[in-house]
Amino acid sequence: MLSSRIGILGGGQLGLMLLQAAVDWNLDIHVLDPDADAPCKKIAPHFQQGSLQDFDTVYEFGKNLDVITIEIEKVNVEALEALEKEGKRVYPQPAVIRQIQDKRIQKQFYSDRQLPTAEFILTDNKADAAQHASFLPAFHKLGKDGYDGRGVQRIATPADFDKAFDKPGLLEKAVPFTKELAVIVARNASGQTETFPTLEMVFHPEHNLVEYLFAPAAITPEIDAKAQEIAIKTAEAFQIVGLLAVELFLTPEGEVLINEVAPRPHNSGHHTIRANATSQYEQHWRAILDLPLGSTAAYAPSAMVNLLGEDGFEGPALYEGMEKILGTPQVFPFLYWKAITKPFRKMGHITIMDDSLDALKEKVAFVKDNIRVISSVK
Amino acid sequence: MLSSRIGILGGGQLGLMLLQAAVDWNLDIHVLDPDADAPCKKIAPHFQQGSLQDFDTVYEFGKNLDVITIEIEKVNVEALEALEKEGKRVYPQPAVIRQIQDKRIQKQFYSDRQLPTAEFILTDNKADAAQHASFLPAFHKLGKDGYDGRGVQRIATPADFDKAFDKPGLLEKAVPFTKELAVIVARNASGQTETFPTLEMVFHPEHNLVEYLFAPAAITPEIDAKAQEIAIKTAEAFQIVGLLAVELFLTPEGEVLINEVAPRPHNSGHHTIRANATSQYEQHWRAILDLPLGSTAAYAPSAMVNLLGEDGFEGPALYEGMEKILGTPQVFPFLYWKAITKPFRKMGHITIMDDSLDALKEKVAFVKDNIRVISSVK
Repeated sequence: MLSSRIGILGGGQLGLMLLQAAVDWNLDIHVLDPDADAPCKKIAPHFQQGSLQDFDTVYEFGKNLDVITIEIEKVNVEALEALEKEGKRVYPQPAVIRQIQDKRIQKQFYSDRQLPTAEFILTDNKADAAQHASFLPAFHKLGKDGYDGRGVQRIATPADFDKAFDKPGLLEKAVPFTKELAVIVARNASGQTETFPTLEMVFHPEHNLVEYLFAPAAITPEIDAKAQEIAIKTAEAFQIVGLLAVELFLTPEGEVLINEVAPRPHNSGHHTIRANATSQYEQHWRAILDLPLGSTAAYAPSAMVNLLGEDGFEGPALYEGMEKILGTPQVFPFLYWKAITKPFRKMGHITIMDDSLDALKEKVAFVKDNIRVISSVK
Repeated sequence: MLSSRIGILGGGQLGLMLLQAAVDWNLDIHVLDPDADAPCKKIAPHFQQGSLQDFDTVYEFGKNLDVITIEIEKVNVEALEALEKEGKRVYPQPAVIRQIQDKRIQKQFYSDRQLPTAEFILTDNKADAAQHASFLPAFHKLGKDGYDGRGVQRIATPADFDKAFDKPGLLEKAVPFTKELAVIVARNASGQTETFPTLEMVFHPEHNLVEYLFAPAAITPEIDAKAQEIAIKTAEAFQIVGLLAVELFLTPEGEVLINEVAPRPHNSGHHTIRANATSQYEQHWRAILDLPLGSTAAYAPSAMVNLLGEDGFEGPALYEGMEKILGTPQVFPFLYWKAITKPFRKMGHITIMDDSLDALKEKVAFVKDNIRVISSVK
């Protein structure tokens, strides 16, 4: 299994961390990315520039490989299906990517299988959505191609339907929630599943990006058990081979609802590189190479802060304050090899560990106050 | 500091692990190695084939870089001195490499500075050595170019002087010892020092290679304090910038004696990648880039088993038993990207962690019994 020729569709930061985890086992990794200077470029054993959405490019890339995986869902699924038919191991399976790529199918999937999720109505276009004023407040979500906070609009009053998408989408009831949680679960080709400890996400109020997260989540053992169980059931319902990141809402009544899922390593699992016996990246390789899944035991409470390009700067990136944060024990910056910073661009992340949650949160505040990604160009 | 252009002389497994640690900070690493297929080749951002012992090659390699370091001592020190004179930051410093490259100078250095080490006599050649029958039993050590157990002969009786080297060397009193220990210490350009926990080495009785090691060593707090103190004093005596691996003998009387040192990441520190908050490799970068040194706190007791090519096999390497050992929690194989296995060739290592030393030793035995590096070619 370790001698397989492996392809990754996508060479961004998730691909970079997959590559790093692959070095220990000397995996033969080939990366495809449209950007000739993608984060993976510098250390990929094999790197090819090309479109992830073009049938021929993806098909030709995969034809000479044994195993094909993804670090982004927006890929040509038809090409993956053709490769799968020819006997290539494509994980996650194209059918799963197809179900998850389209939020309409994804939501219907939960509903059909009694997996808990917020109420929703499928909508064909803006006018269709606007008929459901009685369902507000709600979020209008684009069926396909939403990403990182794009493709979602909050519709509080009928006037907001102006912002609704004029494409197939869905209207999801805005559920009041007290916390956003996530559980990353791995399932290997033999059907073994293993979860990472439940984590808690703290979103930036304006940019709709995770500002920081910490693990384990500050929740009761009962809520934790519920979150873990839902994650495993969801992975088993999809029959996914690989990682599934399950984002969850915790309601004031103690209900746990699936928000959405990603069939790949996830931004909410970066901290596992340092804090857990097996990282989500190594676990992904174990799952798709059908190896026994690794222990996900945590060494200590941990947090992850996204390192975003500072507003007002666009140009060659400078990391101000690195020496200062490196002087604090168990603060681990991780940069994404992106030459150019832009406002709010994900340039890296910082994992922070400490023995107590309080000390951890103090360190998070210190790190956030002391590091900035700027540029000499304004 | 993080934007420096950095060169490593040597692209073997130590270089590979240095590279891996450099990825998190996106360090711009250039590697020089005589072997076009050196372990570093696959993931080095920049790789150049060339001799480490040729003045011009080393000088030209370093000329366009800011910081130059090593992963092996056998390099052209004159070229490094020339680069240092031109203002390049060369760490460890050429003067330190020179002192350590020659075991005669190294031993004299300890003796001059009252650093504890076994008694010795400098010898010019075989005949000279053979005059010291009354000093036996002893080891005859070649002054220069000994490596990995080569360059050392045990001289138990006068008849053994036949095996002595006919070159400048030294005769070192064979001290009875109960354990072999090591302390890896880092010292940054500002003079800050930080040690890793003392570890204990278990040597293979025949091949004179570390068979496995574990940390922390099973020693009293007093012995531990002595070992740690000697390591720091030695690093400070050399004024080294970078890592110094200090190998030590523990005598039945509780004396701790310096055996020898290496001015670079060391085979005895591989386990720190998984078991410690900061690995020796990351600590090396911190030291030579003059960043604050990281916490060396261990998450759990750990062991490291060398993965040597099985006797009787030479050819394309196959790792038999990988799936089996990966099914045991906290067993972390690390392969060195060497295509061809040979008897006793270092092909990789395995880090093993557990909460108790007893459980750890059981896992070590399990791992050693279940993995082999073989080849379909005999």
